[in-house]
Amino acid sequence: MPLSRRKIVNDPVYGFITIDNQLILDIIAHPYYQRLRRIHQMALAYLVYPGAVHTRLHHSLGAYHLMCQAISELKAKGADITTDEETAAKAAILLHDIGHGPFSHALENILIPGTDHEEIGLKMMHRMNDELGGKLQLAIELFTGKYHKHFLHQLISGQLDVDRMDYLTRDNFFTGVSEGVIGYDRILKMLTVHNGQLMIEEKGIYSVEKFLVARRLMYWQVYLHKTVLSSEKMLIKIVERVKEIFNTTDVTLKISSPLDYFFESFTGTMDKKALDEFCMLDDDDLMFAVKKWARHPDRVLSVLCKGLLNRNLYKCRLQGMPFDENEVQEKRKKLAAKYNISVNEARYFAFTGVATNTTYRLADEHINILFKDGTVKGISQVDNPLIHETLSMQVKKFYICELV
Amino acid sequence: MPLSRRKIVNDPVYGFITIDNQLILDIIAHPYYQRLRRIHQMALAYLVYPGAVHTRLHHSLGAYHLMCQAISELKAKGADITTDEETAAKAAILLHDIGHGPFSHALENILIPGTDHEEIGLKMMHRMNDELGGKLQLAIELFTGKYHKHFLHQLISGQLDVDRMDYLTRDNFFTGVSEGVIGYDRILKMLTVHNGQLMIEEKGIYSVEKFLVARRLMYWQVYLHKTVLSSEKMLIKIVERVKEIFNTTDVTLKISSPLDYFFESFTGTMDKKALDEFCMLDDDDLMFAVKKWARHPDRVLSVLCKGLLNRNLYKCRLQGMPFDENEVQEKRKKLAAKYNISVNEARYFAFTGVATNTTYRLADEHINILFKDGTVKGISQVDNPLIHETLSMQVKKFYICELV
Amino acid sequence: MPLSRRKIVNDPVYGFITIDNQLILDIIAHPYYQRLRRIHQMALAYLVYPGAVHTRLHHSLGAYHLMCQAISELKAKGADITTDEETAAKAAILLHDIGHGPFSHALENILIPGTDHEEIGLKMMHRMNDELGGKLQLAIELFTGKYHKHFLHQLISGQLDVDRMDYLTRDNFFTGVSEGVIGYDRILKMLTVHNGQLMIEEKGIYSVEKFLVARRLMYWQVYLHKTVLSSEKMLIKIVERVKEIFNTTDVTLKISSPLDYFFESFTGTMDKKALDEFCMLDDDDLMFAVKKWARHPDRVLSVLCKGLLNRNLYKCRLQGMPFDENEVQEKRKKLAAKYNISVNEARYFAFTGVATNTTYRLADEHINILFKDGTVKGISQVDNPLIHETLSMQVKKFYICELV
Amino acid sequence: MPLSRRKIVNDPVYGFITIDNQLILDIIAHPYYQRLRRIHQMALAYLVYPGAVHTRLHHSLGAYHLMCQAISELKAKGADITTDEETAAKAAILLHDIGHGPFSHALENILIPGTDHEEIGLKMMHRMNDELGGKLQLAIELFTGKYHKHFLHQLISGQLDVDRMDYLTRDNFFTGVSEGVIGYDRILKMLTVHNGQLMIEEKGIYSVEKFLVARRLMYWQVYLHKTVLSSEKMLIKIVERVKEIFNTTDVTLKISSPLDYFFESFTGTMDKKALDEFCMLDDDDLMFAVKKWARHPDRVLSVLCKGLLNRNLYKCRLQGMPFDENEVQEKRKKLAAKYNISVNEARYFAFTGVATNTTYRLADEHINILFKDGTVKGISQVDNPLIHETLSMQVKKFYICELV
Repeated sequence: MPLSRRKIVNDPVYGFITIDNQLILDIIAHPYYQRLRRIHQMALAYLVYPGAVHTRLHHSLGAYHLMCQAISELKAKGADITTDEETAAKAAILLHDIGHGPFSHALENILIPGTDHEEIGLKMMHRMNDELGGKLQLAIELFTGKYHKHFLHQLISGQLDVDRMDYLTRDNFFTGVSEGVIGYDRILKMLTVHNGQLMIEEKGIYSVEKFLVARRLMYWQVYLHKTVLSSEKMLIKIVERVKEIFNTTDVTLKISSPLDYFFESFTGTMDKKALDEFCMLDDDDLMFAVKKWARHPDRVLSVLCKGLLNRNLYKCRLQGMPFDENEVQEKRKKLAAKYNISVNEARYFAFTGVATNTTYRLADEHINILFKDGTVKGISQVDNPLIHETLSMQVKKFYICELV
Repeated sequence: MPLSRRKIVNDPVYGFITIDNQLILDIIAHPYYQRLRRIHQMALAYLVYPGAVHTRLHHSLGAYHLMCQAISELKAKGADITTDEETAAKAAILLHDIGHGPFSHALENILIPGTDHEEIGLKMMHRMNDELGGKLQLAIELFTGKYHKHFLHQLISGQLDVDRMDYLTRDNFFTGVSEGVIGYDRILKMLTVHNGQLMIEEKGIYSVEKFLVARRLMYWQVYLHKTVLSSEKMLIKIVERVKEIFNTTDVTLKISSPLDYFFESFTGTMDKKALDEFCMLDDDDLMFAVKKWARHPDRVLSVLCKGLLNRNLYKCRLQGMPFDENEVQEKRKKLAAKYNISVNEARYFAFTGVATNTTYRLADEHINILFKDGTVKGISQVDNPLIHETLSMQVKKFYICELV
Repeated sequence: MPLSRRKIVNDPVYGFITIDNQLILDIIAHPYYQRLRRIHQMALAYLVYPGAVHTRLHHSLGAYHLMCQAISELKAKGADITTDEETAAKAAILLHDIGHGPFSHALENILIPGTDHEEIGLKMMHRMNDELGGKLQLAIELFTGKYHKHFLHQLISGQLDVDRMDYLTRDNFFTGVSEGVIGYDRILKMLTVHNGQLMIEEKGIYSVEKFLVARRLMYWQVYLHKTVLSSEKMLIKIVERVKEIFNTTDVTLKISSPLDYFFESFTGTMDKKALDEFCMLDDDDLMFAVKKWARHPDRVLSVLCKGLLNRNLYKCRLQGMPFDENEVQEKRKKLAAKYNISVNEARYFAFTGVATNTTYRLADEHINILFKDGTVKGISQVDNPLIHETLSMQVKKFYICELV
Repeated sequence: MPLSRRKIVNDPVYGFITIDNQLILDIIAHPYYQRLRRIHQMALAYLVYPGAVHTRLHHSLGAYHLMCQAISELKAKGADITTDEETAAKAAILLHDIGHGPFSHALENILIPGTDHEEIGLKMMHRMNDELGGKLQLAIELFTGKYHKHFLHQLISGQLDVDRMDYLTRDNFFTGVSEGVIGYDRILKMLTVHNGQLMIEEKGIYSVEKFLVARRLMYWQVYLHKTVLSSEKMLIKIVERVKEIFNTTDVTLKISSPLDYFFESFTGTMDKKALDEFCMLDDDDLMFAVKKWARHPDRVLSVLCKGLLNRNLYKCRLQGMPFDENEVQEKRKKLAAKYNISVNEARYFAFTGVATNTTYRLADEHINILFKDGTVKGISQVDNPLIHETLSMQVKKFYICELV
């Protein structure tokens, strides 16, 4: 018997991840995919949860693993999935985050305005598809939802996709927020296809409720934790300050990396040149720049950069009502005096805003339950539901951040 | 340095449980406490969840461990708890289930009508208190809620007591229902005392929500699982049948154990004699009897007993509406013919009933949240609450059980 | 898509165990298999490790799960295994412990001398095979090692079989002795077949070393823990005392169960009648009897039975050298006086013996490592081995047990 | 009751870490300590184990947590430890890795020759001590082993120190190598002080054996995994190449960070200036430089840097005997031709070396076991020891690395 040629990867979350397909190996070996090693899955959340230093690459690999399991379950139940479709679904989920830039959601639309990671990701997939002789064609169709077997798209991107199952599971594993645990294995066992749509068997109702509640908990306790928010706002303010004071003759703002391009030359269009530069960018560029800018003569910039490096973050408060703008203005005046900057500049040191659970909104799509008698109901329509109307509304919380 | 005289007990759930107090050691060594080794924590649920064979003794020990942690946290926050109160609280939680009879909740009020495990437990505690020279006096006061520091009673018996925290944690550990996980360690860190009442700090809101949702999930997915219900009903029907056909001359119904007393002589009053007999009773008596009764000439009895032993349980269905009694009657006729018994006897083989979540009711008491500004709100009164009115209502599900 | 007809079982150790084969379902439903629910996997070890109340049924089911994984891995590597062989291997492992009597190893050869659980098990398998129309024929061949594909037998019973992998994993899970953890998943991934024999790929050397060290640790820290030893000796002494004083007219020694047969009528041959009785016997008979005997007038018997029930166990010491018999005799004299029994009877209260690691002996068979270059070496022959000669020797420890 | 002012930190490994001391909070808030966030605990091991991205900061915090537990256990057993000594021991362990540079052990003595992280760390501690008004004086004495209570130093740095306990536990947690699990909680419970030395109670023998075996496994399976070795050698070769071709006029080798200083101006003495620069250096500087150098005209450098970025690592083989140098020379010739570089330059692309387990050597110090009768034996002197002579020898493995 020949020794195994399959690759197995140790994953602290799932045990072992098995890879036994050449296309999957080719994708993983690609520089675009390896770049995801250098992008933190949870941006700066590690400043609050020191274990949360896992990467986008690790998350994608985990989502791939769940996709393998999901497809295996569905096939065992008789779902019609060809070998090509199976490989394409696995390729698509591996690539679903390929377009993320430095610090993912935290800097999305800040560093590179006018585009998002899904759009960039699609451009990158097309490039890779060209390199790989068109082998990603079907994966791209599944990713964009154009393929006729809609449930395969729903596994990649839907209310109960393997992306969410992995990031919730992985994020609570690495943060240590054990309460956020979801029964991903049970949900996978309960998946079924009915009328071409992905659904959950009746016995899985409580697992799905639990999944939605875990998302809610992770959202407010982790993703929107006031200190996580504070650190991400600090990074955003740093980028905004650089943009404001940038001029091409100030070499101390440049770091001789593709990052310079996005301050100096980016026109707003993700053209070939921009994409080339983007594909070389990762968290390290930003963090290196922050370390350099900490020594920059601009006081606003250096104070913010030192703050981020040494974890002297904004004090942050969240509340249900907007903050009084006069109060904020007072704070700015004091900070302007303290740091010897203008009141206008002090906007970087004290400001308000609104945090919403948009990114992780509850119930914006339907999760359908398939009952034994063949009827289908939404998760909030079952008897004695936990998930009710108000939970599906967007929640706004007002925040104030200020240096102390 | 002398070698340690403390006892440490390996617990798969919490790691190590440390016991360093003589009164606690005396309680654990008492035959009444050791009897709890022979009472399953989850009655017959192991017929569905094979790992759920843990005992009342193990649960009590776990609750004791959480009590140690809770008191340590509260003291670190400045709560006024004397050494005697601390020991008493630990003794009380160790003893809180001492009055459970065979198969706990499943047979409560069936085998020994007119009393419950709390009442019996209190009688047993008084006996132990006499034996131990009055050292359990304060523990009994805490247990019965008569002591002026009410928060100590709330730790033993309240909406967020260590009893519930342990049984939820332990039951999901041994069943393997990982979704039922609660953040007991975080809840313990968030406990506080305000105006003499046990409360949760604001930061603990999501952990408490999670705790309530986990209870809900455990309730419907485990404690009221249709096959668990079916097995417990089978045990109940067996006891009812024995009571019906019992006559003192039929030696084949007796097993020469204290169990006989409760069929033969029990008057309905838990007097000294009855309590003596009770204290020698445990799950083994029942299971032994079931094995003997499986060979009894009464067909109804032997069929039920064999069914329980060999896991040929009732087929059980749950639904929101009552079942049609005519339909049930039809089933009985068929079963009577099949088993050669009367239609009246077939009541043991097909019957309906109502399951409610009384035992594990949600929100029957208040869980109070202490906000940073000193205000106090119930968990369903916070902003954007998950826990809403309808959840706190008792839910009824109608079931039908039938032999097949 | 039809709803799934597979059974999934929650296992706290592995997550979910899937059963999708009718023969396997038939075996599990059989009364012989269900009887294993009533036999503790670790006999009386729960008196030291309160969580160790898991059953032989649960262990068999776990071993079945690992067998499914092992076969799936080997097939993925190209091993020649037919569907029938696969089912047979799964059936065989499910049945491998079917012949265990009450308290397994603890009472083996004590209660029913002259036979062991493997021999009884084989008789039971043949009975089941008859009932199931010969469908277990191949399973029995695999179990007895008569089938030509020897690696399939090695998966059931060998140095690295799934039986050991499961009991080590499960026993450390339920005891909470986390150090005994083995990398069963990694070992399974490293299994291979070479020249018809089961082997381990080179990359698995450290996992196998770790497995053997974990067995050693579990052996001395758990299976031969002095208090576990003490409790098992107490049960043995109880059975021996009953045998000594048994006479057919003393009805207080009988419990009206198949247990009586083995004291009263068993001839030493496991004939049809004996097997019929055996198949109805389990831990509950013994524990029920112990509770009854605790009220028996024979002082030796009642003291021992009360001791076991209330966990007043022998004080036990282990050492490398034999104990001085004069010293033991002195202890007996004192105990005879204390309990008002003869010195000869005091043999039940103070005695010595030898504990060996026979049951769980290290390295009594070879574990072969397959190197990349095709060479095969034993695990103790690799470069810089951890596992050395002396470890493979049987270790004797002398013990003394005495009532206090 | 006031709301808690203690800080609790979520740790996926231990649950919660509590910090309730101002000096400890001051240390954690210090920029030197925060710098450890930007140094990977396991250097480039994440290229093999994608989860192994945890940081030196996280490890130090974990070791601090174990120190808290160890001291609490020892005090409960009567060890004489004052409050000042307790705080100092906690401060010392928090600071024990403060002197680590980029990629820790991987680049130690390569980037900054002639010094090691302990020496640098001590200099940094003295600086911090000055800033903190001398409050670290006792911590420094404990760290350097000059304090008379030697067991406190042994907790920080010894064969069974909390440093090793944490890194083994943490590294196997984040790599997912579950077999490397150690029973740190049990070892902590078994610690004792005898004649002023740290020892292990007799009952802890198997836990200590297990600890040493887990180290062995982690060493060969993880720390010296051939691909981990390969990636670290690649980073070393990159630094060596930069040193070789560095000249002050080539601005494309510089990155405008303190890293430049160590190529350009470092004299070999860790003086004030050098230390100032060092304290601003972390993994990000190196990774940023590697990304820049990947675009450098020097072919050797750019090939290596691209290789590291895109995980095109050396193919690496380990064996017990040295490799044939002629064979290596042949490989270099081929690589020189393939990459159009000189054979001499091809030394960077194919080379041999020796890996030893120096860093993680087994049994280089004694672990003493305290028996109940007061005797003390080394762990390899107990009856029937697992840990034998040969294990304590340094093991050499020869490796070859080559580009493919």
